[in-house]
Parts: sequence; C-alpha cells; structure tokens
Amino acid sequence: MSILIGIADTTFSKVNMGEIAERTLREEGEGIKIRRITVPGIKDLPRACITLLKECDIAMALGMPGGEEIDKQCAHEASQGIITTQLTTGKPVIEVFVHEDEAESPKELVRITRDRTKKHCINTLMMSRKSYARTMIRRAGTGRRQGRKDVGSIE
Amino acid sequence: MSILIGIADTTFSKVNMGEIAERTLREEGEGIKIRRITVPGIKDLPRACITLLKECDIAMALGMPGGEEIDKQCAHEASQGIITTQLTTGKPVIEVFVHEDEAESPKELVRITRDRTKKHCINTLMMSRKSYARTMIRRAGTGRRQGRKDVGSIE
Amino acid sequence: MSILIGIADTTFSKVNMGEIAERTLREEGEGIKIRRITVPGIKDLPRACITLLKECDIAMALGMPGGEEIDKQCAHEASQGIITTQLTTGKPVIEVFVHEDEAESPKELVRITRDRTKKHCINTLMMSRKSYARTMIRRAGTGRRQGRKDVGSIE
Amino acid sequence: MSILIGIADTTFSKVNMGEIAERTLREEGEGIKIRRITVPGIKDLPRACITLLKECDIAMALGMPGGEEIDKQCAHEASQGIITTQLTTGKPVIEVFVHEDEAESPKELVRITRDRTKKHCINTLMMSRKSYARTMIRRAGTGRRQGRKDVGSIE
Amino acid sequence: MSILIGIADTTFSKVNMGEIAERTLREEGEGIKIRRITVPGIKDLPRACITLLKECDIAMALGMPGGEEIDKQCAHEASQGIITTQLTTGKPVIEVFVHEDEAESPKELVRITRDRTKKHCINTLMMSRKSYARTMIRRAGTGRRQGRKDVGSIE
Repeated sequence: MSILIGIADTTFSKVNMGEIAERTLREEGEGIKIRRITVPGIKDLPRACITLLKECDIAMALGMPGGEEIDKQCAHEASQGIITTQLTTGKPVIEVFVHEDEAESPKELVRITRDRTKKHCINTLMMSRKSYARTMIRRAGTGRRQGRKDVGSIE
Repeated sequence: MSILIGIADTTFSKVNMGEIAERTLREEGEGIKIRRITVPGIKDLPRACITLLKECDIAMALGMPGGEEIDKQCAHEASQGIITTQLTTGKPVIEVFVHEDEAESPKELVRITRDRTKKHCINTLMMSRKSYARTMIRRAGTGRRQGRKDVGSIE
Repeated sequence: MSILIGIADTTFSKVNMGEIAERTLREEGEGIKIRRITVPGIKDLPRACITLLKECDIAMALGMPGGEEIDKQCAHEASQGIITTQLTTGKPVIEVFVHEDEAESPKELVRITRDRTKKHCINTLMMSRKSYARTMIRRAGTGRRQGRKDVGSIE
Repeated sequence: MSILIGIADTTFSKVNMGEIAERTLREEGEGIKIRRITVPGIKDLPRACITLLKECDIAMALGMPGGEEIDKQCAHEASQGIITTQLTTGKPVIEVFVHEDEAESPKELVRITRDRTKKHCINTLMMSRKSYARTMIRRAGTGRRQGRKDVGSIE
Repeated sequence: MSILIGIADTTFSKVNMGEIAERTLREEGEGIKIRRITVPGIKDLPRACITLLKECDIAMALGMPGGEEIDKQCAHEASQGIITTQLTTGKPVIEVFVHEDEAESPKELVRITRDRTKKHCINTLMMSRKSYARTMIRRAGTGRRQGRKDVGSIE
C-alpha cells in the first residue's frame, strides 16, 4: 500500500528545505507519494500540516527561525501548534527546525540543514510503516542527533 | 468563484493597518470580497478571526504590539490564539504584527508597517487560490522577508 | 432586543473593578442586562467567563495582578485561558488587567484602574451591537489607549 | 442536596495539603461529600481533576512546587492544564500552590500552606453553592490574600 | 483483569529509558501487558502517547532533554503536550524527564535516570489499579522525590 507523506516548508527559510526533503524521501522511500505546501513563515506551518494530514499519513514541518529573541518566540509558538496538530489528528508530524544562530557561517548552516533534514526524512519513513517500529525501539537511548554527529549512549 | 477575505485589525495600532490591507487586496486581487472587524487590541484578534472565518476563506490578523515586556507577552498570547484559530477552523490566518520597537523613528515604523502589510496581502491572495500553490513552492527557501528586504538564499 | 453582558472580577483586586464596570455599563448602555460573578483570583476568570457566556452575549474579565514575577506568570496563564474561552464560545471577552506595578502610588493605581475599566466598558458596548461595527473601524489605527491618554496615529 | 467536592494532591509536597483540605472542608461545610486522588507531582494534577470532575461539582488542586527554575516551569504547565480542565468541564478548580521559596524556614512554609489551604477551602465552599454568590460579590476588590494577611482595598 | 501499560521513549536519549521501564514494570507488576513506541525526540512523545492510549490504560513518557536553552523550551512544549494528551484521553501519562545538566558526570546521569525511571514505574503501577488509591493517599505530603532521595515531610 502506498504511503502519503506531507511536506510543509516556508519562503522565509534561506535554504530550500522542502526540496531536500522531497528528493531524500523519493530516493530513500519505496512506494511513497508526496504532497507539498509552502507557506510564508514557521507560524503558518501548523495549519499547513492540518491541511496535509487530511490526506497524508504523516507530515514533515520544515523551517528556519531567525536568530533574534522574537524569532525564538515564533519558533516556540509554531512548535506548540505542531504538537497540537498531532494531538488533534493522531498522526505524527516530524518538526525540522534549523535556527539561523546554530551555525557560524552560511556554509555551516547549509550543512546542518541538509544533514538534519535528511536524517529526519529517514525517521519519517521509519515512522510511516509499522514494520519499522522494532528498528526504532532498537535505536532507543542511543543518543541520536540530527544536524550533527550522534553522541551515543552513556550506559 | 469569488474569494472572501477577512481582515481583523485594532484601534491600539498607530497605523491604520486594516485600511492598507483593504486597499492592497482590492488593487492586487481579482474577484475578491472583504469582511473587516476592528477590535481594541491584539489579544482580541483571535476571536475576531474565528468570527470572520465562519464566512471567509482566509483571514489577516493585523496588529502593532508596544515595546514593553508586557506587550511582548500579549503578542505571544495573541499569536498562540491565532494558531489555535487556524487549527480549529482548518483555514489560514496570516498574522501581520509590527512591533513598535522594530523602528527607530515613527517614519520608519510607518514604512515597515506598509511594506509588511502589503507583502502579506500578496501572500494572502496566493494562499487563497489553489492555482498559486506552485508559485509558493517555487519561492520556498528564498529568504523572503516582510517589512524589510528579502535576504535571499544561501545555497 | 436586550443585550446580556457578563462581568467577572476578583476578591484579590485592591479596587472594586466589577462595581466600576457595572455602574459604567448601566450609565452608558441602553437596554442592557448584567450578570456578575466574583472569583478569588485572575486564574479563576476564564472559567467564570465560560459560565457567564452560556447566557451572555459578551463578557468582561477584570483583574489586578500583583507586581511579582509569579504574578506576571499568573496573568499570562489567565490571558491564555481568556483567549481559549473566546475561541471555544465564539464570543468576545474584553480583558481588563491592571498590574499593581504600573503605578507609583495607590492613588495613581486607582486612577488607571477606573480609566481603563470605563474605556473598556465603552469598547464592550460597541462590540455588543452590530450597529457599532463601523464606528470601531473608523477608530482603527488611531493609537487608542486604556488607563492612559491615547497616543494617536503616526501616519 | 449534597455537594461533591474533589481534592487532588501530591506525594511530592512536604506538607499533607490534602489532609488539611479534607479536615477544613468537613469542619466548615455542611452536607458535603469528598473524593480524593493523590498523584506524584503537580503536573499530574490536571488529569486527576478531570477524573474527579466527572463526578464532583468542584475540585481543589493542591501542590508545593520546588524552588528551582525547572519547578517554576512545571508549576506554569500545571496551571495551564488546570485552566484547560475548567474550560473543558465548565466546573471550577481552585488551585492552591505554595512555592517552597516563598518561606524562609520550614516552619513558615507550613504556616503559609495551612493558611492558604484553609482560606481556599472557604472559597471552594462559597463557589460550590449559588447561595454564596452574593457574598463573593460583596468581597470583590477587597484585596484578599491566601497564605498571608489581606492587603485590603485602596479605594 | 490485565492492565495494558504504554511506554514512549526516544532515540535522542543517551540512556535506554524504555528498556529500564519495561524491565522494571515486568519485575514489579503482575498481570500487566506492555506496548512500546520509540520516537526521535521528546516533542514526538505526546503524539506517541495519544496513539498508545487508544489501547493502553496508562502511559509513561520517557525523555532526556539536553542542557541548552533551546532544549529547555522543547521540554516545556513536550510537557504541555503531555498534559493536553491526558486531558483529551482522561488517562494518566507519567512523565519521566531527566535533564542532561542535572548531573555532573555521565555516571551520575545514568544513576539519576535509573532511579527516576524505576520509582516512576512504581507510581505507574500504583495509578493503574484502583486498589492502590489508598496507598497513594497515605503517601500524600511526604516529600517523595524521583532521581534522588526523598526529602520527607516538614510537618
């Protein structure tokens, strides 16, 4: 059976996160279909996801909040909305936010964005099929990171 | 088919944002109709939008929070309510907030307000018709800004 | 047709805000009826408003948060609840909060409280009748303030 | 008719707040019945109240947040949940939180806890019967405090 | 009658909290069945719990937030979502969060994680059966702590 994955991204982001996600999902996933909605900013993502999840089985919410205090607040509001979206629909939304001030250069910011988006595409594919539930459990507590190297277990 | 757009704005704002939006939407949009509600302050905007969205397809929430700490908190509460409004109705609300402390002079504040309001009118028109969905996707990750110059892509 | 207005206020407040509101609404409004509920503190106001709005067309939520950090947090929680109340019922609640640390003397605090409460009574009356919707729109962007002088438009 | 009052308290608290409430309600109230649920911490209180309010007419949520930054955040989350509980059920929940850092000694902390809990039991009894609604209104704006002396009116 | 307990944990955590919980619940509980979901990070826990609670009677949400400011915000959003989950389903979710900056060494972090997880497993078992409700009430106000020693009552 074909899995329908939703992608929501923004025109505010300085990297085309939606395109990275689309390409990665098509490369890594089998028998999947994609719906995509692009909105102005991260605070528009929760509604975009609600719309996508009317059809889709799972969604990705991609955004790049700025480095100012007000941007942190916007990211907080968007995240709350994304959680509410999941509780309302009962379906997962994988949030992929890259904060502009995480990196010290544009080049590093692009690198983090690509790494985080791609790794979360794999998470999305795993969560979209029941057959991968055991794989996720095997990875529990292993200190996985997206956007940088895994830190590993301390046990 | 005619698109019905709602505008909610405030008496608190020092700029008539609702009028700027009304004029821009009428100039730029075709076959649209407008409903407008003016409320005292930004915390009244979520309810105004819920009322507008009973009829309208999409709404704009326009406000100008003050520069004090308490105003930041009010803006935060209003934004949370605007997101909840969208999740409840399933319809988009474009939030246009201009913070009084974003500008160093009244003149600059007016300029930012006009630019941000007008650009978000274009976003609103694009999001109100399915035929523009591809245009939004083409703009994904291009670092668009409202109220100031676009910053562009870093890829 | 008679308009039913709800008033919710607190025993915590150092000024009888509910009485000021009741008197002002009766003086300024025609053909209105009032229901009033007094609760211990501001965090009890959202529930009081939900109860009032089962009957009433609109409500006022009156409170005087203290000046400590914890009081700011309580005010924030109360405000979020008041917005949720409006989104749930679809009816307006006019929040009238006066923070104890807004004034430098008890006398000034009383003056701010009276001014803000009275002005918001006028807002409440205007929002309770459709016939005043145009008046509110005419006031849009005029920098209205409650508790102190209007700052006016900067356009 | 018998009034059913719910009490929710925690094992985290250093004072048996539920017992103080139970004893006070039985001493001061007539014809009341009590249901009690004890949970681990304050973040478990909203759910406990939802459960109690299936049967009860009103509930008390009793807790003693610690003095660290993280405890303040927990208290904030619990308070938001307690307000949502009220908006969902339409029934009042009287929150009685005593922060560990409000007092300078364990002895003072016990004293504040007892005073606040007892006074809020009286509030609970008053809010549980319509016949006391006028008494609450007579107390409006009188600067009532729980856990310390009333500050009185400034009018 | 068999009790069905849900466990939600993360791949982000540096300790396999889900495994500790599974083992403890099986050792300490009788006639229980377990369902487990592992998700990427703590913000995915609320949705995982909603899914688990369709079947389960109670759930545990296990996570290890990082030590940065942004991690504190994520934990806050996750906690709000976990409370909403409980209010929506009416069922308890025991949150077990261990913050990376609670400990001064990896060894101590492992120790805190094990202690907190195990003690909350006992809480979960107690809350899953009505027959233990009296035991919880007997523990009220006794200053219980998870992850470190109980502080006891101050009465």
